[in-house]
Amino acid sequence: MQSILDEIAERARMTRQKGRVADYIPELAKIDPDHFGMCIATVDGECFSAGDADIPFSIQSVSKVFALALALGRVGDAIWHRVGREPSGLSFDSILLLEREDGVPRNPFINAGALVTTDTYLTASSPREALASLLRFVRTACDDEGIHINEKVAASEISTGHRNFALAHYLASCGNLHNEVNKVLGTYCHQCGIEMTCRQLALAGRFLIDAPDMPRLVSPDRRRRIASLMMTCGHYDGSGDFAFRVGLPGKSGVGGGILVIAPGRAAIAVWSPGLNRYGNSKLGTEAMEFFAKQTGWSVFG
Amino acid sequence: MQSILDEIAERARMTRQKGRVADYIPELAKIDPDHFGMCIATVDGECFSAGDADIPFSIQSVSKVFALALALGRVGDAIWHRVGREPSGLSFDSILLLEREDGVPRNPFINAGALVTTDTYLTASSPREALASLLRFVRTACDDEGIHINEKVAASEISTGHRNFALAHYLASCGNLHNEVNKVLGTYCHQCGIEMTCRQLALAGRFLIDAPDMPRLVSPDRRRRIASLMMTCGHYDGSGDFAFRVGLPGKSGVGGGILVIAPGRAAIAVWSPGLNRYGNSKLGTEAMEFFAKQTGWSVFG
Amino acid sequence: MQSILDEIAERARMTRQKGRVADYIPELAKIDPDHFGMCIATVDGECFSAGDADIPFSIQSVSKVFALALALGRVGDAIWHRVGREPSGLSFDSILLLEREDGVPRNPFINAGALVTTDTYLTASSPREALASLLRFVRTACDDEGIHINEKVAASEISTGHRNFALAHYLASCGNLHNEVNKVLGTYCHQCGIEMTCRQLALAGRFLIDAPDMPRLVSPDRRRRIASLMMTCGHYDGSGDFAFRVGLPGKSGVGGGILVIAPGRAAIAVWSPGLNRYGNSKLGTEAMEFFAKQTGWSVFG
Amino acid sequence: MQSILDEIAERARMTRQKGRVADYIPELAKIDPDHFGMCIATVDGECFSAGDADIPFSIQSVSKVFALALALGRVGDAIWHRVGREPSGLSFDSILLLEREDGVPRNPFINAGALVTTDTYLTASSPREALASLLRFVRTACDDEGIHINEKVAASEISTGHRNFALAHYLASCGNLHNEVNKVLGTYCHQCGIEMTCRQLALAGRFLIDAPDMPRLVSPDRRRRIASLMMTCGHYDGSGDFAFRVGLPGKSGVGGGILVIAPGRAAIAVWSPGLNRYGNSKLGTEAMEFFAKQTGWSVFG
Repeated sequence: MQSILDEIAERARMTRQKGRVADYIPELAKIDPDHFGMCIATVDGECFSAGDADIPFSIQSVSKVFALALALGRVGDAIWHRVGREPSGLSFDSILLLEREDGVPRNPFINAGALVTTDTYLTASSPREALASLLRFVRTACDDEGIHINEKVAASEISTGHRNFALAHYLASCGNLHNEVNKVLGTYCHQCGIEMTCRQLALAGRFLIDAPDMPRLVSPDRRRRIASLMMTCGHYDGSGDFAFRVGLPGKSGVGGGILVIAPGRAAIAVWSPGLNRYGNSKLGTEAMEFFAKQTGWSVFG
Repeated sequence: MQSILDEIAERARMTRQKGRVADYIPELAKIDPDHFGMCIATVDGECFSAGDADIPFSIQSVSKVFALALALGRVGDAIWHRVGREPSGLSFDSILLLEREDGVPRNPFINAGALVTTDTYLTASSPREALASLLRFVRTACDDEGIHINEKVAASEISTGHRNFALAHYLASCGNLHNEVNKVLGTYCHQCGIEMTCRQLALAGRFLIDAPDMPRLVSPDRRRRIASLMMTCGHYDGSGDFAFRVGLPGKSGVGGGILVIAPGRAAIAVWSPGLNRYGNSKLGTEAMEFFAKQTGWSVFG
Repeated sequence: MQSILDEIAERARMTRQKGRVADYIPELAKIDPDHFGMCIATVDGECFSAGDADIPFSIQSVSKVFALALALGRVGDAIWHRVGREPSGLSFDSILLLEREDGVPRNPFINAGALVTTDTYLTASSPREALASLLRFVRTACDDEGIHINEKVAASEISTGHRNFALAHYLASCGNLHNEVNKVLGTYCHQCGIEMTCRQLALAGRFLIDAPDMPRLVSPDRRRRIASLMMTCGHYDGSGDFAFRVGLPGKSGVGGGILVIAPGRAAIAVWSPGLNRYGNSKLGTEAMEFFAKQTGWSVFG
Repeated sequence: MQSILDEIAERARMTRQKGRVADYIPELAKIDPDHFGMCIATVDGECFSAGDADIPFSIQSVSKVFALALALGRVGDAIWHRVGREPSGLSFDSILLLEREDGVPRNPFINAGALVTTDTYLTASSPREALASLLRFVRTACDDEGIHINEKVAASEISTGHRNFALAHYLASCGNLHNEVNKVLGTYCHQCGIEMTCRQLALAGRFLIDAPDMPRLVSPDRRRRIASLMMTCGHYDGSGDFAFRVGLPGKSGVGGGILVIAPGRAAIAVWSPGLNRYGNSKLGTEAMEFFAKQTGWSVFG
């Protein structure tokens, strides 16, 4: 396992085409594109890592997995009246389908859907309390208290995130936001600003693995369903491609991180800031493709 | 296993809401909606079945799986220049995305994509030869020479399938059909008219399972990739829902059949003619959801 | 002329199906749907009126005509780099096309385009100054200082206008708003809150007629072009229908007002709060259809 | 008048950027792009012309005006249940809206709508009889028996017009074609293959002018309505632009011809084969813009 990781890290170092770092969030645009880290947390309690596995990065949309788990814990399947479970076929911040489908986002892993998720776990609490709950969830999952929100990143997203503001106001105009728009957006941007290392993220992902000693934060049914959404919707309009090449459920973030679940085996986190045309980590995807090939861990056998 | 199947068949018999039989193909509209059959072909060479597992039905779009395997055998990955690998988020016969994406269908499991697949395996042969190749593939897969095309169904589709004609001419107008439009359509409608029983279909599906004694008709890489497409695109705009509820790759047909793969374990065929709003077998989907729950065979653990 | 107006007012009074008053702006929802007023200001300086022609109403999107004239005066044809001149084929608040066309609204008479217009005349001034300029334009046009903005309506739109906020943030995310989003929205909502009577509105519309003694607020070329946009885009996705039935350029507002130009002859204002399915005044449209038929004033001869 | 025409023809001759001749119909691709002709038939019975005003060209979509008049004569306003009256905002051969609006084309001047028009005047007659009726209408309108269909152009369109075949089959799949698809398409392609000179076309257009001595082929109401559709929908997704620049109702064809109506004054035909990005004659549009400016004939005063 370690040798596979080492080879992956070495290949990443050698690759010239690292993709483009997200530049629409000024704070993220400053990140060095040469970072690469990877960590695997197995069901046996082992951790393998390579590269910058202990440098924190902005998990961005990877947070949607934890947020969904938290929201499901709050309202259960009622959330599915407000957000769908189908791939959108469009980019992460598309507003087009929202108009076509009367304000019900296609799934909780595109931005519009994630705003509904945030709105759900925010209900009946202040943003501060809601974010505290979310951090508690993540910290419990990885058994590490050292996880924080980067306020500068959150502030950067709030001041420049016009597309998310557009989505949130559109949802509100359709009656699909129950809290005040700015409150939801503030909470959402802070959620996206959570920073974690690959090691922390891999450990935090273990609650989605079906194995005896894993953290039990959601029911088995819910665990499977979250993983299914990661498979069909976890990489925006590149989800089909990720399933085709990697064969494992995963969720990417515009910060360059990807959390991948190998059912029954391990949780894997990979980080490389350069993105491909879908907005997913370019080297991260390639690393996972190589990894899945070497291990034979594709769920498709 | 047999008791699970028996319970499923009994539940199906008791269910009032069986969905609506497809009525846009006159020959299919005549089918008795009370049929229900299911068969499981395991890696151990066993076969379990229940209900009308030995009555042939029109496999319709389930044929797209065999057609894709055949086309990949002919031209390899070159096919991916002509058809995508992403869920479409729209119904099986939508022409809208085709215009938006300049004649490159989203994936090979919606009708537009399947027409490109047919065009691919048709190249350099007559429709008769091409269909003979396809039948040979299917017969080899299930080791059963008794599989035929229902000419009446094929003729019925040709005479009423205006939507498919529209899709094919649109593809041709974008330069994405290489054979004559009517030739492709004739071949496609015959492909859809293949009739199989649940038993035959389950056996034919074994080539997509990763196990030693299965028919080896495609390479392991290709096998995994076909299965990944079944997971993300196998049920049209209900693909996310099927993954969420069942957690196994599958491909449905408007005739009411579904072929499902349980990696490393079995191939499963289920048939019930009534459809849900996505055009997938209603009871078939419910049967698979129950089956996956009872067996714990979801790929998501 | 007066007898035509009287007959129209009488017919309006008798009509049962008056359409639905806009209810998404709470202040507008309070209006009595039985109001009906009409006024014709001819090139000879005469004014004919009927019904509630002297009761002020919220002109809403009719203001887009004055705003466009003002913005053209500020930046000239440069505005056409930021907004198109084609009918949108979609509803007044659609955000869909904006995504398809990278943030360039189809025309200045749908909400997205009007936000760009407001952004244009707002540049280099405070909202207060900008609105003062707009009011000055309107007051000059109708030679009446008694025209004001209803602050309650403006406030009502600001607090509930999520769709407009979504459009504005979307434009900002595409770089097509130069002023701060909230500043543009505040100005826009005040612009929509201008109140006028039919008499005032008809008089104010005279600057779009080609006749010697009319107020000369824009050049003849610009006058014709504004009128052409009213013809092709003045009634959202009901513009073709209005041209078909009435044959005169017009601009409607969700408050139930319509300003119509009969080139070389007159400016006409009609008001009835109930709307048809396109969001245009139902009785207002019917009144204009009858009027055009009786007078033979259709531009199509 | 003659001097204006002469200047226009001279300007056309001097212009380098003549646009691109349509190349998707092989027979049209052969036309010399340097042709330019124009003719004005006034209500006084005079005819002014310049350039190649007596060379026949393929009128293509200009035929949609005559076809609509003929179909209205057959079924009256019942046609409006099968086709809309709104600009489409999309290109002439778009199939996208057809899916969104369940097979009811936006207007009779885009290809999908024109196919419905052809289907309408074709009902209860053979293609030969239907085309004879159409030719009779056109010949009567221009009082010239020398108008024919170019069979080679028609055949060229039938053999390469996949986009029109796609539209027709789509309409059929929605139940909005009553005759056999191939029969409608054959008739439609022959209709588009009508050849006329500018002189003939200008004379034929007089039935749309409101003046005493004009051919009276439709009622005044219908005349106005056809003209209104030419204004809002006559130039596909460039209709707004044509109204903005020219201010007169017109209908273009991909052969480079445009028929324009100046209500109360004249019918005008212009021809130049090179097209702009909307598929309308580039020099023809520029010529009409100059003409409208010089004459002051814009309907907007």
